[in-house]
Amino acid sequence: MQAVVDFILELDRLKQVTRKIRVRGTERYENPAEHSWQIAMLALSLAPCAAEPVDADRVVRMLLVHDVGEIDAGDAFFFAEGDAQARTAAERAAAARIFGLLPAPQAASLLALWDEFETGASAEARFAHAADRAMPVLLNLANAGQSWRDNGVSHAQVVGRLAGPIRAGCPALWDYLEGRLDEARRNGWFGA
Amino acid sequence: MQAVVDFILELDRLKQVTRKIRVRGTERYENPAEHSWQIAMLALSLAPCAAEPVDADRVVRMLLVHDVGEIDAGDAFFFAEGDAQARTAAERAAAARIFGLLPAPQAASLLALWDEFETGASAEARFAHAADRAMPVLLNLANAGQSWRDNGVSHAQVVGRLAGPIRAGCPALWDYLEGRLDEARRNGWFGA
Repeated sequence: MQAVVDFILELDRLKQVTRKIRVRGTERYENPAEHSWQIAMLALSLAPCAAEPVDADRVVRMLLVHDVGEIDAGDAFFFAEGDAQARTAAERAAAARIFGLLPAPQAASLLALWDEFETGASAEARFAHAADRAMPVLLNLANAGQSWRDNGVSHAQVVGRLAGPIRAGCPALWDYLEGRLDEARRNGWFGA
Repeated sequence: MQAVVDFILELDRLKQVTRKIRVRGTERYENPAEHSWQIAMLALSLAPCAAEPVDADRVVRMLLVHDVGEIDAGDAFFFAEGDAQARTAAERAAAARIFGLLPAPQAASLLALWDEFETGASAEARFAHAADRAMPVLLNLANAGQSWRDNGVSHAQVVGRLAGPIRAGCPALWDYLEGRLDEARRNGWFGA
C-alpha cells in the first residue's frame, strides 16, 4: 500500500507543471494533470469517429499516463525548437522512475502504455495522439489564438505539424479543424 | 463534431472550480479536473486490492465524469453541513445539462455512469467511492492536515464519515489509513 501512496503523491507534482495554454477565462496556465483529464474526456466523446476501431478504455489509460514524464522533464512547447530525441529520452527516464515506485508488474504495464503512446504503434495510440494534438487547437480557437500569438506560431506551422497526426487518428476531427483554422487565420489569431 | 467541441469546451470550466485542498507545496487550491485525473490513477493502481473484482476501466470512466456537476454547482466541502439531497439534485441537473451537449446516446451513457457512481450501486461504484474519499486523506497526511486544520475537521469526523465507504471499496486501503490517521491525531493535524 505504501508503494501506491508514494506513487500517487509523486503524481501530485504534475499539477505544478505549466503548459502554454491558459485556462479559458483566466490568467492561469493549465497543467498537464487537468489537460490529461480533459483529453481523456475528449477521446471518450470522439471514439465513434476514430479512424480505425479502437478500445476507448486503452486510449483513456494511455492519455492518463502520457504526460507523467513531465514531472521531471517539464512541459516542452509543441512548436519549440530543440533536440526531440533527448527530450523523449528524458521524459521516458522520468516515466520509468515514477512508474517504478509501484510494484514491478504494475510499473511495467504503465511503462508499456507510455511507450505505446510515444511510438504511436497502435490504432489506440494514433487516436490518442489525435486527441492530445487537437485539444490545444480547440482551446486556442476558443481563446482568440492565445498560445499561438504568445509564442509566434503560424498557421502554416499548425497545419504542417498537426494535419498528419490528427487525420491519422480521427479524420472527421481534422476536417472540422481545417475550416476553423482558416477562419482563425482570417481573424489574425496566429503569431507569425 | 461541433457537439463534441461544445461539450469539451464546457468541461474546461471544471478547471476553475476550487476544492479545499492545496496542491502539495503550493498555495493554489486544487480543482476537480486535476483531482479527477489523480483519482483515476489511484484507482488504476489500487484495483488489485478492490473489495470485489472490478472492471477498472469502468471505474476510471466513472471517476472522470463524477465531478462534472460541480461546473454549475461548485464544490461542496465533504464535511460541510447542508442539504445533501438538494446538493445532489443540483449536481445531477448540471451533469444532465452538460452531458446533454453530446448526441443523445453518448449523453445517456455518461449520465448512467454518473448515476451509478452517485448511488454506489455496483462494485465499481463502491471502489470508485473509496478512491475518491481516500485521495484528500492522502493529501492531508502529506500536508500536515491542511484542509482538516483550515476547516475545523476532527479525527472522529474523518473516521466516522470515511471508514465505511473506504472499507467497503478497498479494505486494505482503510487498514493503512487507520494507522496513519491515528498518527496524524498524535501530530495535532486535526482542526477540532
